[in-house]
Amino acid sequence: MPKFMDIHRNMKGLTAEQLREAHQADLDIQGEEGVTFEHAWADTDSGEVFCLSEAPSADAVQRIHERAGHKADEVHQLTLSV
Amino acid sequence: MPKFMDIHRNMKGLTAEQLREAHQADLDIQGEEGVTFEHAWADTDSGEVFCLSEAPSADAVQRIHERAGHKADEVHQLTLSV
Repeated sequence: MPKFMDIHRNMKGLTAEQLREAHQADLDIQGEEGVTFEHAWADTDSGEVFCLSEAPSADAVQRIHERAGHKADEVHQLTLSV
Repeated sequence: MPKFMDIHRNMKGLTAEQLREAHQADLDIQGEEGVTFEHAWADTDSGEVFCLSEAPSADAVQRIHERAGHKADEVHQLTLSV
């Protein structure tokens, strides 16, 4: 299953509780698209959130994020990994 | 120890061998700055490389990347993680 890194920008000041809730909203529906979100990390100073997932496609990742209320700004398929 | 995600852009067409060599060049000297690179992933179509590390500071991450010959375009401290 391909891996993906997606990026959400302009999230400065995000709290731990907000990140947990947003991530849980993804987890609650990810199975409907065959997506597995593995980690989410935030740089709360500059406002980026990075999500690592396994999924059948970038569109599947984006559909889950959109339905959960937080569309990603970029979704990258990770074609190489070390 | 804080975690960091750094991004290298404009790496379209990077090969698996090139990524392994670049990552190994970081690993070879990371201890001199107290940095531990955990993973590197590349989107070879759009040209981004993402590196996840633990380090004392963003500057320490960047110093290793610069000395290894591939300065990062962005280094983000990951202040939240889920």
